Amino acid sequence: MAEQLARKIEQIVRKVSGIAHGPVVLHEPFFNGNERQYVTDCIDTNWVSTVGKYVNLFEQQISRTTGVKHTIATINGTAALHICLQLAGVQPGDEVLMQALTFVASANAIAYCNATPHFIDVSPVSLGVCPERLREHLKAATSMQNGILLNKVTGRPIRALMVMHTFGHPSQLDELLSICNEYGLKMIEDAAEAIGSEYHGRHVGNHGLISALSFNGNKTITTGGGGAILTNDDHLAQQARHLTTTGKVTHIWEYHHDCIAYNYRLPNINAALGCAQLEQLGDVIMKKRVLASRYQHEFKQVADLSFFNEMPGVKSNYWLNAVILKTPDMETRNQLLNTLNADGIMVRPIWNLMNRLPMYAACPAADLSISHQLEQSVINIPSSPSF
Amino acid sequence: MAEQLARKIEQIVRKVSGIAHGPVVLHEPFFNGNERQYVTDCIDTNWVSTVGKYVNLFEQQISRTTGVKHTIATINGTAALHICLQLAGVQPGDEVLMQALTFVASANAIAYCNATPHFIDVSPVSLGVCPERLREHLKAATSMQNGILLNKVTGRPIRALMVMHTFGHPSQLDELLSICNEYGLKMIEDAAEAIGSEYHGRHVGNHGLISALSFNGNKTITTGGGGAILTNDDHLAQQARHLTTTGKVTHIWEYHHDCIAYNYRLPNINAALGCAQLEQLGDVIMKKRVLASRYQHEFKQVADLSFFNEMPGVKSNYWLNAVILKTPDMETRNQLLNTLNADGIMVRPIWNLMNRLPMYAACPAADLSISHQLEQSVINIPSSPSF
Repeated sequence: MAEQLARKIEQIVRKVSGIAHGPVVLHEPFFNGNERQYVTDCIDTNWVSTVGKYVNLFEQQISRTTGVKHTIATINGTAALHICLQLAGVQPGDEVLMQALTFVASANAIAYCNATPHFIDVSPVSLGVCPERLREHLKAATSMQNGILLNKVTGRPIRALMVMHTFGHPSQLDELLSICNEYGLKMIEDAAEAIGSEYHGRHVGNHGLISALSFNGNKTITTGGGGAILTNDDHLAQQARHLTTTGKVTHIWEYHHDCIAYNYRLPNINAALGCAQLEQLGDVIMKKRVLASRYQHEFKQVADLSFFNEMPGVKSNYWLNAVILKTPDMETRNQLLNTLNADGIMVRPIWNLMNRLPMYAACPAADLSISHQLEQSVINIPSSPSF
Repeated sequence: MAEQLARKIEQIVRKVSGIAHGPVVLHEPFFNGNERQYVTDCIDTNWVSTVGKYVNLFEQQISRTTGVKHTIATINGTAALHICLQLAGVQPGDEVLMQALTFVASANAIAYCNATPHFIDVSPVSLGVCPERLREHLKAATSMQNGILLNKVTGRPIRALMVMHTFGHPSQLDELLSICNEYGLKMIEDAAEAIGSEYHGRHVGNHGLISALSFNGNKTITTGGGGAILTNDDHLAQQARHLTTTGKVTHIWEYHHDCIAYNYRLPNINAALGCAQLEQLGDVIMKKRVLASRYQHEFKQVADLSFFNEMPGVKSNYWLNAVILKTPDMETRNQLLNTLNADGIMVRPIWNLMNRLPMYAACPAADLSISHQLEQSVINIPSSPSF
C-alpha cells in the first residue's frame, strides 16, 4: 500500500513542481531581486556588521509588512523567542504553555529562561494550540492563587502561552487570547514560520504581547540566519532593543552595560539579503498559495490522504505544504518517507513531539492525543516558491 | 594639560594614518579580496544558511591558520564562549575565574550557564590575568575539598579560568596553565580579539582546553557577525558541533534532538565573507604590526603616555592599539576622550570593569588595583589595517 501511495505522491509532486526527473528539494530560497546588489553594497561601504542602514531598513519594512509597530531584528528566530519570553515576564521556575507539536527551538527558548515547557494538544483544524483542550486542561490542572495561575501538581506558576503558527497556518488567535485574558496569561506568538500569514485580515504577530519571526534558510524568505521580535508595546520594544545589543547604555565612547543581556543583533549583511527578499514577499506568497491550490486539487483524487488547508477566516503563507494520512500509522508514514526520499522527492515528517525528546520527557503535559495522531500521519511535501 | 595632550595624540594619529583632515575611525574592516565573489556565489547557488561549502571551508581554514585541530563556526564570539564554558563542565552554581578588565560578553557567557564570574586582576605586562596575583588569591581565598576547588567565602565550586587576550596581546599562558593544573581548573581561552596572535610561536587558542574566537565587524577580520570554537579534543569538538546545531541527531528525515541545545551555527553567507577575509589575514596582520611600530616610534616622544607593546616571546595582532597615561587619572582620560572624539579622532577607553557593572557588582573579586589603574589610563587609538 505504502509503495503505491509513494508513487502517487511522487507523480503529483513531479507534476506540480514541473520537475520530471531528478531531485525535488523540500524548500529552496528564491533570490530573484536585489540580493546581490544590496549585499555587495554592504561590502563596498564597509558596513557588514550590527550597525548599518540595512538593519534599520529591514526593521522598518518588516513593520510595514506586518503592521506591528516595532520590529527588532535578531540573529535568528530562537534568539527572538528567548527575548519574547523574558519580556513576557517568564521567571526561572515558571512554566510556559506550548504545543508539543513544534520545532525544538520553542521549547529550548523556555529552557534558556530556566523555565519549564508545559505541553498542550493542538487542534486538527489549525495545527496550533487547541482552544477547547487548553481551556479544559486549565480548568482541571490549575488554580489561581493571589492572582497567579499555578499548576496544581507541580505548584509552579504558569506565566505565559506560546502560540505557534504551524507551517504558516495561523492559530485560533481570538479564542486563545480570550483564554489568556481569562487566566492572566501573557500570549506570545511564535510566528517563525508565518511571515505573510493573516488572521481575519491582520498579519500574525499582532495579537500576542510580543512575537517572533524567523528568516532561516528554509523559511519563506531568508536572511541566511535571522529573526525578528515584533511588538506594538513601546516599552517592550525599547527593552527588546536593549537586551539584544548587550545591554549597552548609549554613550559616544563609554562601555557601560546595565543588565545581563545578549549579542543577538542581526548583522547588516544578513539584513541586506532580507531587504531584497522582503521586496519579493508578495510575489513569493502568491506563488506559494498557487502551489498549495494545485496540490489541493491533485490530492483530492488520493483516497488515503488529505491535503492540509487553511481554516476559514485566515490566509496562510503555506510555508510547507502537508498531506495527512487519513489512517494514522507510523509504519506507513516511515515507509513513505523512506521511499520518497530514496527517489529524490524530499519529504519530511512533522517534528518528533517535544514530550518524546529526552530533555523534555518529564515536563508537564495535558492529553496530547491529537498531536500523537498527527505525528503518525503528517508528511511535508516539496514547497519551493520557484516551482 | 589634557587639551595639549589631545592635540599631540591627534597629530600622531593623523600622521600615522595619513588622514590629514576629517574623521579617523577606530577600526574598519578591510575588504580587498574575494569577498564580493564568495558572497555572490552563495546567492547564485542558493546556499546562504547554516549548510553550505563556505562554512566547512571556513572551519578548515581557521584550523589551518591556528593549528588547532577542530574549529566549529558560530554566530558570534559570545555564543562560542557560552559553549566553551558548558563543555569545560561549568555547572549552575559554579564560579568561573576571569579578568574584570574585559568586554561584558565574557561575564555574560558565564551568567548564561547560571554560574558566577569571580574577578581577578590583570598583569600590566600582558593586560591578561596576572599569574602571580591569581596564585596569591587562590592560596588565600580557596580550599580543596574532595578534589573540588571551593571559594572559602561563598562555598561554591570554582570550575574554570577564562583567560582573555586583551586587544590581541596573548596572556601569560604557560604560567596560567600551570596554575590551572595545580588547582584542578579547566582553562578556557577567550581569544575573541586575538586571531593571528602567537604565544611562543604557537597560535593562541591551543593552550586552553577549548577556546573562542570572534569575527564581529570591529575585529581584525570579520564575517559580519561570527565566531568560532577551537579545541584539540576530538570528543569536545563533536559535542560543540552537536550543541551549536540544536542537538539534532543526524538522520535523513527525522527531527530528533537529544539535549537542550542552541541555534548557534554560522550561516554560509557569513562564512563566505570569512573565507575571503582569512585569505588576507597575513597581509592584515603585517599592516597592523607596521602600524603599531609606527605608533610606538611616535609616542616615544610623548612624556605623559606610554604605548602598549607586546611582551617578549609573543606576537600580537595589535587588534586595537593602546596608549596608557603614565599617571592614571579619570578626569584627564575623559577629557582626552571627549576632545579627540569631538575632533573626529575616534578613541575609546578600556571597558568599564566588570565588577562596576550593576549585575556583576556583587560577584566575588580579588584585589583589582592594577585593573583600576588601567581603567583610568588606557585609551585605544585608531587601528584600521587600511591606514
